[in-house]
Amino acid sequence: MTRITAAQAQTIITTAMATGVERGFKPLSVIVLDAGGHVVAFARADGSAPGRFGIAHGKAYGAVMLGMPGSAQMARAEAQPYFMAAMNGVYGGHVVPVPGGVLVKHDGEVIGAVGVTGDTSDNDVVAALAGLAAVDLTGEA
Amino acid sequence: MTRITAAQAQTIITTAMATGVERGFKPLSVIVLDAGGHVVAFARADGSAPGRFGIAHGKAYGAVMLGMPGSAQMARAEAQPYFMAAMNGVYGGHVVPVPGGVLVKHDGEVIGAVGVTGDTSDNDVVAALAGLAAVDLTGEA
Amino acid sequence: MTRITAAQAQTIITTAMATGVERGFKPLSVIVLDAGGHVVAFARADGSAPGRFGIAHGKAYGAVMLGMPGSAQMARAEAQPYFMAAMNGVYGGHVVPVPGGVLVKHDGEVIGAVGVTGDTSDNDVVAALAGLAAVDLTGEA
Amino acid sequence: MTRITAAQAQTIITTAMATGVERGFKPLSVIVLDAGGHVVAFARADGSAPGRFGIAHGKAYGAVMLGMPGSAQMARAEAQPYFMAAMNGVYGGHVVPVPGGVLVKHDGEVIGAVGVTGDTSDNDVVAALAGLAAVDLTGEA
Repeated sequence: MTRITAAQAQTIITTAMATGVERGFKPLSVIVLDAGGHVVAFARADGSAPGRFGIAHGKAYGAVMLGMPGSAQMARAEAQPYFMAAMNGVYGGHVVPVPGGVLVKHDGEVIGAVGVTGDTSDNDVVAALAGLAAVDLTGEA
Repeated sequence: MTRITAAQAQTIITTAMATGVERGFKPLSVIVLDAGGHVVAFARADGSAPGRFGIAHGKAYGAVMLGMPGSAQMARAEAQPYFMAAMNGVYGGHVVPVPGGVLVKHDGEVIGAVGVTGDTSDNDVVAALAGLAAVDLTGEA
Repeated sequence: MTRITAAQAQTIITTAMATGVERGFKPLSVIVLDAGGHVVAFARADGSAPGRFGIAHGKAYGAVMLGMPGSAQMARAEAQPYFMAAMNGVYGGHVVPVPGGVLVKHDGEVIGAVGVTGDTSDNDVVAALAGLAAVDLTGEA
Repeated sequence: MTRITAAQAQTIITTAMATGVERGFKPLSVIVLDAGGHVVAFARADGSAPGRFGIAHGKAYGAVMLGMPGSAQMARAEAQPYFMAAMNGVYGGHVVPVPGGVLVKHDGEVIGAVGVTGDTSDNDVVAALAGLAAVDLTGEA
């Protein structure tokens, strides 16, 4: 299995955050998780609320654990709120079912996820995909 | 960054609780958190339910962690209930998204939060703002 | 059952903290819990580590939940470390088995506890007992 | 109060990890927390065990919450194992009392902590201090 390297993770984070600055987004926080849902790298921009790690982590962790990107989780949350509430409980509170949790695949296999938080969920996705494009990886948002 | 001192926290609490007595509110509980969401001071009036610490704390803690006052959290909870449920999970159950969690800023920077509970959410806000006014601090309710 | 009033709790805290200042102790944090182990009041002096609420709370909460003051809990921890580790787990991590958790009785009945942290455990006890003396309550340290 | 900026955090991490490579340490993981114990940035080197975030975090978080660097926590754990076990419980399992949790002060005030894990605890400290030196900050190991 291919994995996201530490160097790629830094490029993803740097590029996602630079994208946010270029487009005038609010300060972003970006996390990269591996195929097991474990943290590879994280950064929080100056001016963010202190608790941003938890949101970035929850977006990406939910994506890996459920094998569903944030938009699919949100659709499920709207259809069955109690189901996603249960998922939040099952995974220790670490599931945030909104866009910004981007699943990363290689040859059809999940190799990790990127979580972005700070601006609107849609802008968070823009930043995440820009980060992934910088390392030639495909994201499912 | 300026911080809320222990002496200011006591004045905030004393004034908020006195405001409640003057206006005939039900017994109030008041908490002051610092910029990292850690407790500086708390008091619960005689006649309160025993669990008031958790509510006061959750109102103020959510405000600091998310950088959003209680009213904004409530609006988000009404628009996307599953999102605020997820925030509650992410922050270990310590998010109560209703008015009464008042964000405290100084020169545009969050330096803490006040959480009040006991009467209606709107009256809780009145007491919190009275407490902050007594130490010349600005609250975002 | 007599209870510790909100006014008494404030006097306990104010006196305990003033005792610390008079005696040159490090900055203290002081909590008062009721007979159910619920927070009545808390204060943390300027210059304390941010996490002091948890330690003050754990000293007092363990005292109420187990009906044993901090010194008795410490003796038990030294004799049977695994037992006090289990108690910590049973009560959600909220048991800190060292002196500074002072059980408060009235007519032989537990009506609450005071928890003090910041200096040595022995000095923490001195401050707690001074606070209780100021409201004519008896502490078991 | 001065804070550790996002840019400084990246330099601390990059330098600490480069120090590990230069000296032939095992792959390191490095975290930077702010004065409230919240994550500013984290990175895990290729070849690390997946759970390294938790160890790096626990070393740094315990340092901030207790106001004690890892070496002081370890001394306390050796003298009173049940006390540090209790601290682990109080802070939700997020206290790892060994060297590698380095307290960062500015003008005598705690502004955050660096946590390093991967090699021996002593080598972890070497890397952390190298990272802090690169941004002219002082570490208490």
